[in-house]
Amino acid sequence: MADSLLSHVGIAVADLGEAIKRYEVITGRSPVMVTEVADQKVKVAMFAAGGHESGGRIELVAATADDSPIAKYIAKRGEGLHHICIYVEDIDQRLAELKKEGYRLIDETPRIGAEGNRIAFVHPSAGGGVLIELEEKK
Amino acid sequence: MADSLLSHVGIAVADLGEAIKRYEVITGRSPVMVTEVADQKVKVAMFAAGGHESGGRIELVAATADDSPIAKYIAKRGEGLHHICIYVEDIDQRLAELKKEGYRLIDETPRIGAEGNRIAFVHPSAGGGVLIELEEKK
Repeated sequence: MADSLLSHVGIAVADLGEAIKRYEVITGRSPVMVTEVADQKVKVAMFAAGGHESGGRIELVAATADDSPIAKYIAKRGEGLHHICIYVEDIDQRLAELKKEGYRLIDETPRIGAEGNRIAFVHPSAGGGVLIELEEKK
Repeated sequence: MADSLLSHVGIAVADLGEAIKRYEVITGRSPVMVTEVADQKVKVAMFAAGGHESGGRIELVAATADDSPIAKYIAKRGEGLHHICIYVEDIDQRLAELKKEGYRLIDETPRIGAEGNRIAFVHPSAGGGVLIELEEKK
């Protein structure tokens, strides 16, 4: 388990190139990775203090198609924080306890995320208005 | 410099006790610190994977008075992400570069944050709709 509780925060941006420039000035760093996630119809630029697997990253996410979830999000709410991703030790146990307490889940069972770890989304109603992704680190 | 780019994310919550319970179920952890910051009129519960000075923390923030900035925020926008705090190596240099590029700052010069580090807030218009705190780690 990394020394960071947060895996990353995902920020929905309209123009990835322009957003990268802003975050280069804000952080004083260059992205450690810029990649396309074809099945989500997004491009991602990752800022991190360590390598691309270090915790506490900032991920800028832009849509690559009008029907991308990020395009829909920006059309509805504008640019801004999309979700926070939290490292958990046992994702099955967390989902079971959330369900038992009556919290609304988006993913009832874990699936494999873009980086190969088991992940699951919890509805914003459970996180005080924040969309939460749980990630079990290998 | 910690291995996490993010110092913390601050989430505005209406009821701190209720929010702590939710985040205990979500993270599988107890808060490492619950404290009151009198001059900001807030109470804070901090979740972290390491000690209270480890990066990548989640900080739940609740108002202790109706004229607290957090009370005003929740009245206007509801509960949710309030800001993200990013570790930077040289806060004076970051503020100078942001200013030079024409980005709007909230704090033109650094001030001392609740934990004794030099901090400054950057306007959400610079961060793609996200209020950003810069923190220079000692």
